[in-house]
Amino acid sequence: VNLRVGVIGAGSWGTTVAHLCAHNASTVLYARDPAIAGALNSTGENPRYLPGRALHPALRATADIGEAAGGADAVVMAVPSHGFRDTLRSLRPHVGDAAPVVSLTKGLEGRTRRRMTEVIGDELPGRPAGVLTGPNLAKEILAGRAAAAVLAMAPADAPLAERLRDVFCAGDFRVYTNTDVVGAEIAGATKNVIALAAGISDGLEAGDNTRAALITRGLAEVTRLGVALGGDPATFAGLAGIGDIVATCVSPQSRNRHVGERLGRGESITGIVASMDQVAEGVKSTPVVAALARWRGVDMPITEEVRAVIEDGRPAAAAYRALLDRPPTSETQR
Amino acid sequence: VNLRVGVIGAGSWGTTVAHLCAHNASTVLYARDPAIAGALNSTGENPRYLPGRALHPALRATADIGEAAGGADAVVMAVPSHGFRDTLRSLRPHVGDAAPVVSLTKGLEGRTRRRMTEVIGDELPGRPAGVLTGPNLAKEILAGRAAAAVLAMAPADAPLAERLRDVFCAGDFRVYTNTDVVGAEIAGATKNVIALAAGISDGLEAGDNTRAALITRGLAEVTRLGVALGGDPATFAGLAGIGDIVATCVSPQSRNRHVGERLGRGESITGIVASMDQVAEGVKSTPVVAALARWRGVDMPITEEVRAVIEDGRPAAAAYRALLDRPPTSETQR
Repeated sequence: VNLRVGVIGAGSWGTTVAHLCAHNASTVLYARDPAIAGALNSTGENPRYLPGRALHPALRATADIGEAAGGADAVVMAVPSHGFRDTLRSLRPHVGDAAPVVSLTKGLEGRTRRRMTEVIGDELPGRPAGVLTGPNLAKEILAGRAAAAVLAMAPADAPLAERLRDVFCAGDFRVYTNTDVVGAEIAGATKNVIALAAGISDGLEAGDNTRAALITRGLAEVTRLGVALGGDPATFAGLAGIGDIVATCVSPQSRNRHVGERLGRGESITGIVASMDQVAEGVKSTPVVAALARWRGVDMPITEEVRAVIEDGRPAAAAYRALLDRPPTSETQR
Repeated sequence: VNLRVGVIGAGSWGTTVAHLCAHNASTVLYARDPAIAGALNSTGENPRYLPGRALHPALRATADIGEAAGGADAVVMAVPSHGFRDTLRSLRPHVGDAAPVVSLTKGLEGRTRRRMTEVIGDELPGRPAGVLTGPNLAKEILAGRAAAAVLAMAPADAPLAERLRDVFCAGDFRVYTNTDVVGAEIAGATKNVIALAAGISDGLEAGDNTRAALITRGLAEVTRLGVALGGDPATFAGLAGIGDIVATCVSPQSRNRHVGERLGRGESITGIVASMDQVAEGVKSTPVVAALARWRGVDMPITEEVRAVIEDGRPAAAAYRALLDRPPTSETQR
C-alpha cells in the first residue's frame, strides 16, 4: 500500500500501532517528548514505554506534530481522552480535508461526555472518523503473538474501512471491520470500568466465580448503556465488548485491573495514581460513564459502585457487599 | 422450606449442591461408592472429591439410590452425561410422578446428541425438568465465596422455579431464574469445548489477547448453535454463557482448561485422560457438539479444530494455525 500514515502519541499502544502500520505504509510517529522521538530514530526502540522491544525499521518518529500529520493519508490518534481535543486543535492546520482520523482512545471526554469520534467531528469536521478497538495488549502484539481487533467506521465509509484495515493488519494481528461506531467506542470507554471492578474483586480475593459473574453483569450493564446511545448489542458480544473486557479483566498486564486490585486491598486512589507512570483511563472515565448513565436513565450498579470507590472514597469491601446484597430476580431483569 | 431433596451423584459439584440445599431442605446425597457415603456420614466430608471441606451438618449420604430419591420433593442429577440415562432408569421406581428433576450436568448424550432435560423427558416423562448452570467452581462455593447461577425451567414451570431457587440459594450463592432451558443447556454443554480451546492456546503460550479473541469467537459460535436449536441469544450473553465460559477459561481450577493446556503442550489425549481422576466433560462432549453442528448446518470452526485434536490426533499447533489463517472479514460475518 503506497500510503502515508501519521500516528499521534507515542505511548505503548500508539507506538505498537505505528509499528504495525510501518509494515504496510510509510509511517511517522509523533512523540511529544523529543527525547523519545530521538531515541526511537537512533535505536529503533521506545525507551520509555517499550524498552527492549525492536520496532519496524522503517518507522520514523518526530516531535513535530505537523511533520507527522502533514500530507498523511490517514491520521491515527493515540492520546488520552483528556488531551484529545487540544491535540486535534493543534493538528487542524496539518490534516488534509479528506484524511480519515482513527481513534485508539478508550475513554470519553470528561466535560462533554462525548465519544472521541464526536470530538474529531467537532475539531476536524468533514473528515471520516473511526475507531480501532479490541483485546490488544501492546506487548504481546509487539512480540508477534496473534491478536484481533475491530475497525469501526460509519456505513458510508465502509470501502475506506476496508482499505484502512489492510494498513493495520500485520503478521498475526487481524482486523475485522464493523459499522457500529457508537457501540465500539462505548464498549472501549466502559471496559475499563469493568476492569476496575474485576480488579477490586481480585484485591478482595473474591475468587474466579465472582469475577466471572462481575464480568457477565458488567457486560450486561455496559450493553444497556450502548444500546441506549444507539449502539448494536452484537458489538458488545464481539471483540470490542466481551473480547476486550475478558482480556483486560484477566490479564496481569492491564493497568486498570491493577488499579482495581490495589483499591480492593484497601489503598487510596490518590496514592495509587501518584505511583503510576501512565494513565489508567478507567480512573478518569468511570465518573464520566456514571454521569452519562444517570443522564440517560440507564441502571449501572457496578459502575456506580466503582465510581463511589474512586470519587467518594467508599471502601471497596462495602461496594462489593452492596452489589451482593441486591435481591436476585429473573436473569433478564438484572 | 419444609422440603425433601435427593441429590444423585457425589462428585465435587453434586456434593457442593447437596451442601447448599441442606441449608434449606432435608437433603440426602446418593454416592455410588458406599465408602464415600459412609465417610460423609461419619466425618461430614467427602474424602474423595472435597477432602478437608466441612459440609453442612444436616446433610446425609446414602449408597441406596432409592433412599435418596424416594419421597423426594425434588431430585437433582449430578452424574456425567454418559451415565445420565442409566441412572434415570434406576431412579424410575423411586421418583414421584410430579417431582421436578434438575440437571447439573454440562454435556450432551453421545449416541443421541440429546440434552439432559430431554433425556429426563424420555426416562421420567411428566416430571418438570430444569437445569442449574453458571460459573460455579465447587471449591470456591464451599469456601463460602460469592457466586451466581441460573435455574432454567420451561415458562409453564416458572412458579416452581421460583420455589426451587430458594432451595439452592445459601449464603452468597445466588440463583437467577430463566425460562430458556435449551439455551442454558447448550451453553453448559459447549462451554467445555471453548475451555479446551482456551487451554490449548495457553499450552501454546499464545497470550492474553489470543485467549480473549478465542473466548469471543467461541461464544459467537456456540450462540449460533444455541439459536439454531431454539435458544435465546440473551442466555449466552448471561451467566450460563459468557459467565461460565469466562470462569472456566481463566480458572486454574477447571479440568477442561487443564486438559486443553496439556494438549497445547503436545501431550496426547489418551495419556491425559488416563492420568485424571474425574471426567473432563469436554473430552466427551466436543465430538457430540461438532456432530450436532454439522447435522444442523452451523459453522463452528473452533469446535471443529478441538474435535480434530481430540479425535484425529491433529497437533494442537496445527489446529491453532488453521484458525489464524481464516481470512478476516467483517466482524458479523465471522
